[in-house]
Amino acid sequence: MIPFQVQVLYDFSGETNTSELSINVGEVLTVTRDDVGEGWWEGRNSKGVCGLFPESYVERISSAPPALPPMNPLPVTPAPAYQSVPPVYDNDFVSNAPSDDDDWDDYPEVQHHQTKVLPYNQGSYDNSRYQNDDNISESNFGDGKGTAHTKRNLNRFSTFVKSGGESYILGTLKVSVAADQRVVISKHDEVTFSWPQIVNAYTVHITSPKKESKLKGLKSYIAYQLTPSFNNIKVSRRYKHFDWLHERLMEKFSIMAVPPLPDKQISGRYEDQFIEHRRLQLQEFVNYVCKHPVFSASEVWQHFLTCTDEKLWKQGKRQAERDPLLGANYCLTIQAPEKELMSSIVDSKIDANLSFVQNLDSAIKNLMSVAMDQAKKHQGPYKREFAKISESFHRLGFALSSEEKSGMLSLPSAITNIGVAYSDIGQYYEDQPKYDWEPLSNTLYLYKGLTSAFPEIFALHKGVQQKRKECEKNNMPPAELNDIRRRNDVLTYAIFAEMNHFKVQRSIDMKAAMQSYLKEQINFYKKIVTRLEQTLMQLDDC
Amino acid sequence: MIPFQVQVLYDFSGETNTSELSINVGEVLTVTRDDVGEGWWEGRNSKGVCGLFPESYVERISSAPPALPPMNPLPVTPAPAYQSVPPVYDNDFVSNAPSDDDDWDDYPEVQHHQTKVLPYNQGSYDNSRYQNDDNISESNFGDGKGTAHTKRNLNRFSTFVKSGGESYILGTLKVSVAADQRVVISKHDEVTFSWPQIVNAYTVHITSPKKESKLKGLKSYIAYQLTPSFNNIKVSRRYKHFDWLHERLMEKFSIMAVPPLPDKQISGRYEDQFIEHRRLQLQEFVNYVCKHPVFSASEVWQHFLTCTDEKLWKQGKRQAERDPLLGANYCLTIQAPEKELMSSIVDSKIDANLSFVQNLDSAIKNLMSVAMDQAKKHQGPYKREFAKISESFHRLGFALSSEEKSGMLSLPSAITNIGVAYSDIGQYYEDQPKYDWEPLSNTLYLYKGLTSAFPEIFALHKGVQQKRKECEKNNMPPAELNDIRRRNDVLTYAIFAEMNHFKVQRSIDMKAAMQSYLKEQINFYKKIVTRLEQTLMQLDDC
Repeated sequence: MIPFQVQVLYDFSGETNTSELSINVGEVLTVTRDDVGEGWWEGRNSKGVCGLFPESYVERISSAPPALPPMNPLPVTPAPAYQSVPPVYDNDFVSNAPSDDDDWDDYPEVQHHQTKVLPYNQGSYDNSRYQNDDNISESNFGDGKGTAHTKRNLNRFSTFVKSGGESYILGTLKVSVAADQRVVISKHDEVTFSWPQIVNAYTVHITSPKKESKLKGLKSYIAYQLTPSFNNIKVSRRYKHFDWLHERLMEKFSIMAVPPLPDKQISGRYEDQFIEHRRLQLQEFVNYVCKHPVFSASEVWQHFLTCTDEKLWKQGKRQAERDPLLGANYCLTIQAPEKELMSSIVDSKIDANLSFVQNLDSAIKNLMSVAMDQAKKHQGPYKREFAKISESFHRLGFALSSEEKSGMLSLPSAITNIGVAYSDIGQYYEDQPKYDWEPLSNTLYLYKGLTSAFPEIFALHKGVQQKRKECEKNNMPPAELNDIRRRNDVLTYAIFAEMNHFKVQRSIDMKAAMQSYLKEQINFYKKIVTRLEQTLMQLDDC
Repeated sequence: MIPFQVQVLYDFSGETNTSELSINVGEVLTVTRDDVGEGWWEGRNSKGVCGLFPESYVERISSAPPALPPMNPLPVTPAPAYQSVPPVYDNDFVSNAPSDDDDWDDYPEVQHHQTKVLPYNQGSYDNSRYQNDDNISESNFGDGKGTAHTKRNLNRFSTFVKSGGESYILGTLKVSVAADQRVVISKHDEVTFSWPQIVNAYTVHITSPKKESKLKGLKSYIAYQLTPSFNNIKVSRRYKHFDWLHERLMEKFSIMAVPPLPDKQISGRYEDQFIEHRRLQLQEFVNYVCKHPVFSASEVWQHFLTCTDEKLWKQGKRQAERDPLLGANYCLTIQAPEKELMSSIVDSKIDANLSFVQNLDSAIKNLMSVAMDQAKKHQGPYKREFAKISESFHRLGFALSSEEKSGMLSLPSAITNIGVAYSDIGQYYEDQPKYDWEPLSNTLYLYKGLTSAFPEIFALHKGVQQKRKECEKNNMPPAELNDIRRRNDVLTYAIFAEMNHFKVQRSIDMKAAMQSYLKEQINFYKKIVTRLEQTLMQLDDC
């Protein structure tokens, strides 16, 4: 290429110890490489310093049109493979569409989450009539604080439409699912229905997050190794891949409670502690997916879990993004009991469950905040208290040592040893949260996300019921109305099955989490006892 | 009596729920009884309210001279039985001398501590010449904070004179002590000398502090029961008696480290916790006295410990107050090794010990403040942390209980049990200080008092040395000078013996205190382990 000049439009601070170049508004740079990729260019400033900077932060001094002002050197959302379906939405995905290389790019942690309006929900209805109709405000479902990854817009209009509620209940989407592809909901008792049992249960173990780099070390990222028990073939996945997967699961399984991903975080993302914490939260996510009969068998998940070939990855990715059976329309895959459901029973069951999950959500948040608070206190104030105690015994031992007989078995050294013991105990305190409060927090984080998903699922259900009632009022032909009623029931069965799964899995997971927590608490206090017993023995001997 | 009128000179707030009458300056009262005793009168105010008030707070409206304005309804210091010895001091003890009944009066906790100038130190020397001479400022000996009961005025002049240093070194006091009454100091090695061994060691147990009252319940006080092991005869003593004893010990044994009494405290003195705390500190005081060869054998202590007859008590009390062998003059009782001591060795030993006790004092204060801080934190913040944890598990258990199967063996109830366990653990925290930090504090309080006594003892010793040097310069007759040197040495031997006792006893007491502390800490953490293990078992069973 021929080097060319650009003017800086926005300040950019390069990270220290990287090849990034800090640039300031108005500065003129000489671009030496425009093929770095992923939105980066290499250039040289007036002082002769070379480095990388985001291409969108500068403007070619010749005649090139200025780039849009982004907040960060971000990749734009890739053009979806199905961009040709309803051409009217193309614009959402165009503008600087990067090459497919960004499938494996390295800054998904700051990826924008555009709320994609799914094409098949659009065009045929006048949505405005729902806008003031039975809106369910967010305040009905807790403050949703910190549940970014499962929190959805609870405005019924958007939930209902985006989640395919309208399209589904009216039977707009014409997709037929082969009988052997059907997901069968079975009945346990009058009010309990469940997803099929998982036939070949498996686990996936996430190990050794490692820092990998590309672009000759210019960009680095963390890759987690996932090993499914059914094939033992390790795949390497980054947070951005999890994020992509999570988007797909949220889109497709919006009538179910999709477990949350760990929170996004930009700063300090290469700190070991942060990476390990993220690994543990991803493990919780993966565990829940594996144990969910629908998620664990889903194509997109299987693809995520097993694909090792880059070309196949792209194919599978596009296929997942082209999946039409999203949201309520997933019900088209379901084979539910034939029995018609009674509205009153359904409503009371769902209302009870709504109030249950609201209480649970608040209890979980409360325990989680206590857990995080305790974890912090262990590492700060509690440890400091023991440091103070330690220091005092040290001082007393030292003050006495100038007069008493000295040596290992003297009283002053035994008192100094008490100081050492409390310093060790302080260290136990500092180390402890990773054994008890943090794992408990991770499970609670998972369940906070799951719990907070239900109100929206119930809202979608309410929207579908509402729509059915409207249809009933509008004197539809009986056959069509029957279909609508049946579809409503299938959705209800699906939601009942999901509620049941949540309940069963929750009991198992909560029990395990509490057991593990208590065991570690016991170990912790036992360790203190042992350390103090040693100290007492030394004192007895002096 | 004929009722008479008085005018109130000072405000007095009667304690609620007692027969005390609150009175205000200027008010006119009618006195209905002037034979209540102990400084109290009974009267009626203009509103017809009757009650007791301090007689010294009012002035008879007729011709009676106004009483002196005291700060409190205090008994004045009783006229000592030896008031006739040097008549020049009579004035110190006259003015409103109460009847001997005040031997057992009921407000010694606020008794004034008059600094008595002992008669035999006065008259023959011009003390002014010491005033600017080698004053040892308090700052050399720590801040003395909170050591009210052992802290003495470190101004060398007053210490030296008041402690009998001058009188002793110059041989002014002519008292001969029978050979069998002598206290023999023996030599262990070149630098170690000790008091005689205690032949019949005994202990004294302080039990069941009880609230007693007199004046038909108008006045109440706490009586501690002391049972010496040598006779098993219980005596009842109040804080004021301990205080009197302590005064005597401080006067007589000012060349030794007298253990401190618990701090005086007026408010809340009948609270159970306060009473128990004082009992424990009195027990520490008594323990130390019993184990001290000189204190434990002293007449005043034996009198305090065994006297059960009120008449004999008064006799013994007067005798103790008449004891001429006070302060440095106590050395007249001592039979020390003959060998002359080398000034340089003495000085270096005392200097080393001074710096030792200074360091020890600061280390003890530091650990004591940590101990008191931890005790408080156990009962406040730590307990609250566990309450928070408890509350969170309770909430979670409760939130889950609405959906899960209920009953004793359900998961929600097992989680609620975790909440109960942490609430119990919070209670363990609250209860714990009385087993570990508080007993440790009590021992530290004792040793803080003992340690802080030494700088003054050393200052007295320096004063005596100084006086000897002056005498040496003044060409005294050799025989007299020899006596002076010998007396100086005897004092040095006594102080060495005391230092040795302090060292030996300190090792024993510190070790025992640390052992007990660690044992209780171990029990504490074991108790938590046991409680959590129970909880885990309940969880495992659900």
